[in-house]
Amino acid sequence: MTTTAQGPQSAPITQPQAPLATNFRLPGPTPIPPEVAAAGAWPMTNHRGPEFQAVLQRVLTNLKVFFQTEQPILVFPGSGSAGWEASIANCFSAGDAVAIVSIGNFGERYTLVANAFGLNVTKIAFEWGQAADPQVVAERISAIPGLKGVMITHNETSTGVMNDLPALARAVHAAAPDALLLVDAVSSLGCVAAPMDELGLDVVFTGSQKGWMTPPGLMMVAFSQRAAEATKTAKLPRFFWDYTIAAKSFAQGNPPYTPPISLWYQLDVALSMMVAEGRDNVFARHAALGAYTRQRLRAMGLTLFADPAYASNTVTTVNGPANVDVKALLKTLRVEDRVVLAGGQGKLDGQVFRIGHMGFVKQADMDEALAALARRI
Amino acid sequence: MTTTAQGPQSAPITQPQAPLATNFRLPGPTPIPPEVAAAGAWPMTNHRGPEFQAVLQRVLTNLKVFFQTEQPILVFPGSGSAGWEASIANCFSAGDAVAIVSIGNFGERYTLVANAFGLNVTKIAFEWGQAADPQVVAERISAIPGLKGVMITHNETSTGVMNDLPALARAVHAAAPDALLLVDAVSSLGCVAAPMDELGLDVVFTGSQKGWMTPPGLMMVAFSQRAAEATKTAKLPRFFWDYTIAAKSFAQGNPPYTPPISLWYQLDVALSMMVAEGRDNVFARHAALGAYTRQRLRAMGLTLFADPAYASNTVTTVNGPANVDVKALLKTLRVEDRVVLAGGQGKLDGQVFRIGHMGFVKQADMDEALAALARRI
Repeated sequence: MTTTAQGPQSAPITQPQAPLATNFRLPGPTPIPPEVAAAGAWPMTNHRGPEFQAVLQRVLTNLKVFFQTEQPILVFPGSGSAGWEASIANCFSAGDAVAIVSIGNFGERYTLVANAFGLNVTKIAFEWGQAADPQVVAERISAIPGLKGVMITHNETSTGVMNDLPALARAVHAAAPDALLLVDAVSSLGCVAAPMDELGLDVVFTGSQKGWMTPPGLMMVAFSQRAAEATKTAKLPRFFWDYTIAAKSFAQGNPPYTPPISLWYQLDVALSMMVAEGRDNVFARHAALGAYTRQRLRAMGLTLFADPAYASNTVTTVNGPANVDVKALLKTLRVEDRVVLAGGQGKLDGQVFRIGHMGFVKQADMDEALAALARRI
Repeated sequence: MTTTAQGPQSAPITQPQAPLATNFRLPGPTPIPPEVAAAGAWPMTNHRGPEFQAVLQRVLTNLKVFFQTEQPILVFPGSGSAGWEASIANCFSAGDAVAIVSIGNFGERYTLVANAFGLNVTKIAFEWGQAADPQVVAERISAIPGLKGVMITHNETSTGVMNDLPALARAVHAAAPDALLLVDAVSSLGCVAAPMDELGLDVVFTGSQKGWMTPPGLMMVAFSQRAAEATKTAKLPRFFWDYTIAAKSFAQGNPPYTPPISLWYQLDVALSMMVAEGRDNVFARHAALGAYTRQRLRAMGLTLFADPAYASNTVTTVNGPANVDVKALLKTLRVEDRVVLAGGQGKLDGQVFRIGHMGFVKQADMDEALAALARRI
């Protein structure tokens, strides 16, 4: 507070300002490349005009490369939560029997949504830190009469565990051939292979704020032909997320309603960078950085939360060291070192911290973040 | 196609690029001020961290100024369509009797959503170009047994008609005191007074891409205490749009799930500009520009589609002049003059064109657009 001729002046009302630039290592949102950031400031265009139609066609085409599917991709406003809701609302009717394979906080959240929509949910939960056991999943689901769907989290962002999606898909298809297989690939797709068509996945969804180097606000989803067929008899009410409305509209080159235009611009730029790098190179970079991060953390004497056999290549969950206040550690890193890591979620709050290595990330970014961490523990 | 030493070269694959800067006069999306555009390129921050909490608090506080309410505001991903869905999913149960007052394409769309959610809909339609007659609305709704809600479009973007919201609210409350009054204020709020508390409106929603000078991707909504109470017995399934989940989360300073962070930055900057200009000044600017635009158009010999007594101050719908191909006219203006106007919607496609004057607009913008139009007709 200063005193002037007009009397005491309190601190000015805080105005909007750009957040500090940091070494931003959350497992979502993730850092934005400068080219993608710049596109967030591009002028508006008519979402029914030729310029946006070019954006739309490029985005939908390039997304297929990473979804590894021939099915059309639909893009909705929203984050991963939108994927849970859109996948459920389109595929099922109230009372339908579904099984949700839960290995952490996001499996629990998928379950909340399914319950909110009145599905008859069997939750198949595994200990946090472990992957889902395909044999256990197969046994449990084969005992559920009239099973309509199985939901799986590919990469569990809370625990840093990546499920063995091919093995789980084989097990589910063998044990419940008529059930749809819905995959939350929010924090894996675009970083790790989840070949939709090859694995026979029925619904796959992801979010722009994870591996896609784009701010949050877009949810991208694909439906198999079998899932598209199921939407015809699924009775849960829907309009905003409706598969038929959106698929028809996108097929004509139009979004079903006013889309988040600037986020589409940004996803367009990001996808072009990803395609230029090459899908397999993107996947290899994530695999290498995942392994590198884990190796460096262990070399610091830290222990990792996830079963090493199923360690995620997009996020690593680290056990809080003895005698270290995890929340204070994260604050120090953020304020003193401008390194942003994530805390624990759900029952891991205060127990672990998490380091994202997905999207716009190279080894130098990890080196800087890990060096700061090493100094502070 | 050019020929080089390497052989024929086809046109390069079109890469993402910024759209042309134009005099952008759609009635949504609308032009973005430079300060707001710049915020779209700001770095990501943790949506559970202190920087985003400051953004969130400012945005929710400043929105109340323009909603003219003491109720909390909720912000969801999406456009106006999200408002239709969120208002319906939170307030009603399947089979509930509701009346939808339709004066154009967006009233028809609200009806589509209500039907998709299994409501028992009575549509009260007025001729396109006319406003809703409060007496007719009162008569019609008083004849509906067990009426649970009445939906009204404040400003009909397709016809350029602004309903007399105070008169309609009085009529609805008198004729159906127990029915909730839901107001689509997508293309009016932030430009025109729609004082929620004073008029006893129960749900009011709008979209960032209209008067708010922000790209599309955010839907802002407020619920009266009476509407909040109704959500407790409303049985339509919901999670993403759930009032209780979102209200509790925002009250704690947190978004219910990962929000479109960069769009929140932009809305924060835009709202700060609007608050600095002053609410009544913003409203007066829109009133003056609406009247000015209509006067200039009439002076060109053009006729306007809307009943002059209810002409909108955010969008003007112009009848296509005799012997003018409206679509060709709009293309010429866009390509030759870089002036972007909108075509007709629904049954007005090809018959009319529309000029937006909402959000980031001053008289010089209208002068430039109208001068180009005058040269081309």
